[in-house]
Amino acid sequence: MYPDSLRDLIEGFKYLPGIGEKTAERLAFSLLDLPEEKLNFFVESIKTAHDKIHRCPICNHITDQDVCNICSDRLRDTSSLCVVEDSKNVFLFERLGIYHGLYHVLDGLISLIDGINPEDIGIDKLVERIKKGDFKEIILAVKPSIEGETTSLYIKKILEGLNLTISKIASGVPMGADMEYMDAMTLERALNDRKNIE
Amino acid sequence: MYPDSLRDLIEGFKYLPGIGEKTAERLAFSLLDLPEEKLNFFVESIKTAHDKIHRCPICNHITDQDVCNICSDRLRDTSSLCVVEDSKNVFLFERLGIYHGLYHVLDGLISLIDGINPEDIGIDKLVERIKKGDFKEIILAVKPSIEGETTSLYIKKILEGLNLTISKIASGVPMGADMEYMDAMTLERALNDRKNIE
Repeated sequence: MYPDSLRDLIEGFKYLPGIGEKTAERLAFSLLDLPEEKLNFFVESIKTAHDKIHRCPICNHITDQDVCNICSDRLRDTSSLCVVEDSKNVFLFERLGIYHGLYHVLDGLISLIDGINPEDIGIDKLVERIKKGDFKEIILAVKPSIEGETTSLYIKKILEGLNLTISKIASGVPMGADMEYMDAMTLERALNDRKNIE
Repeated sequence: MYPDSLRDLIEGFKYLPGIGEKTAERLAFSLLDLPEEKLNFFVESIKTAHDKIHRCPICNHITDQDVCNICSDRLRDTSSLCVVEDSKNVFLFERLGIYHGLYHVLDGLISLIDGINPEDIGIDKLVERIKKGDFKEIILAVKPSIEGETTSLYIKKILEGLNLTISKIASGVPMGADMEYMDAMTLERALNDRKNIE
């Protein structure tokens, strides 16, 4: 029904996760209406980003430099390493300005159900870096979920015997959230991890 | 905070209507993860669609042919012309298979508030086509809104004196909708346009 070239464009948008037929149609139509200049910028930005952006060889964070600007920043606290599952979380923490150590980005989380094993998410590279490095604390900042817990436990186990503090971020009811909207797992965790009021 | 080329990509996505910072970030990240082959298809589909797709010189519908496949279809009922505000509505009607006449696509609707006048939406081209053509009925299938009503009334007025039936699609409560979710304008219209039960 659609002209072939429009059909292709709609299919192209559908490659992006979370974009279904309806949204792809809407985006394709609006792209056709885009002025030449903006369209060219958009196409160029896709190609440039794809060509230039790669993983930092030290921490696996995405970057367009040889080494990412966090690893090459002399002012960071090099005694602390924060392990995240995704580059997005590095950007998030940096935006909030709540952490000043170094990062290590995994390629996702271990998942027994999906058959994702430690070697698939680059844990060997992480361990190698920690063994060669001079870290005092490893902070595991992964999602509190089955996969997150599995990954955290695996990393803790594999680092056993090294002179390191290994911590993980707290899990519980978020600030300002209504209790009744929390799932059972979150509430159970919040209860089990209760802290004495000082 | 983001690498420049990623920042540009995010800005590129924000050119598309309905895409804010958060969605643009999500789409940009997912684009980086796209396999080379899919990425190339996506980029090519944007360029091809932009180069090939234009307006049908007869009905103003988007097409990649010289004349669109509806205008060039000898089996359509050429006595009926359905006027829509947007090519999307042509695709919608065709998908549903509920209409077998010809179409004319306006470039939007008259809007006094936004300063969009009849000449801005191509009404002169519509009138010229109708005068030269052999239509028996003109169906105005535009959105029931202030702008839709204004546009319908204007077209009706300008076609006065021609030997034509001019109709507009019915407006009211959609099939299956709950009354309490309808706005006042819809309910008022539904009430005023009530039909005797035969």
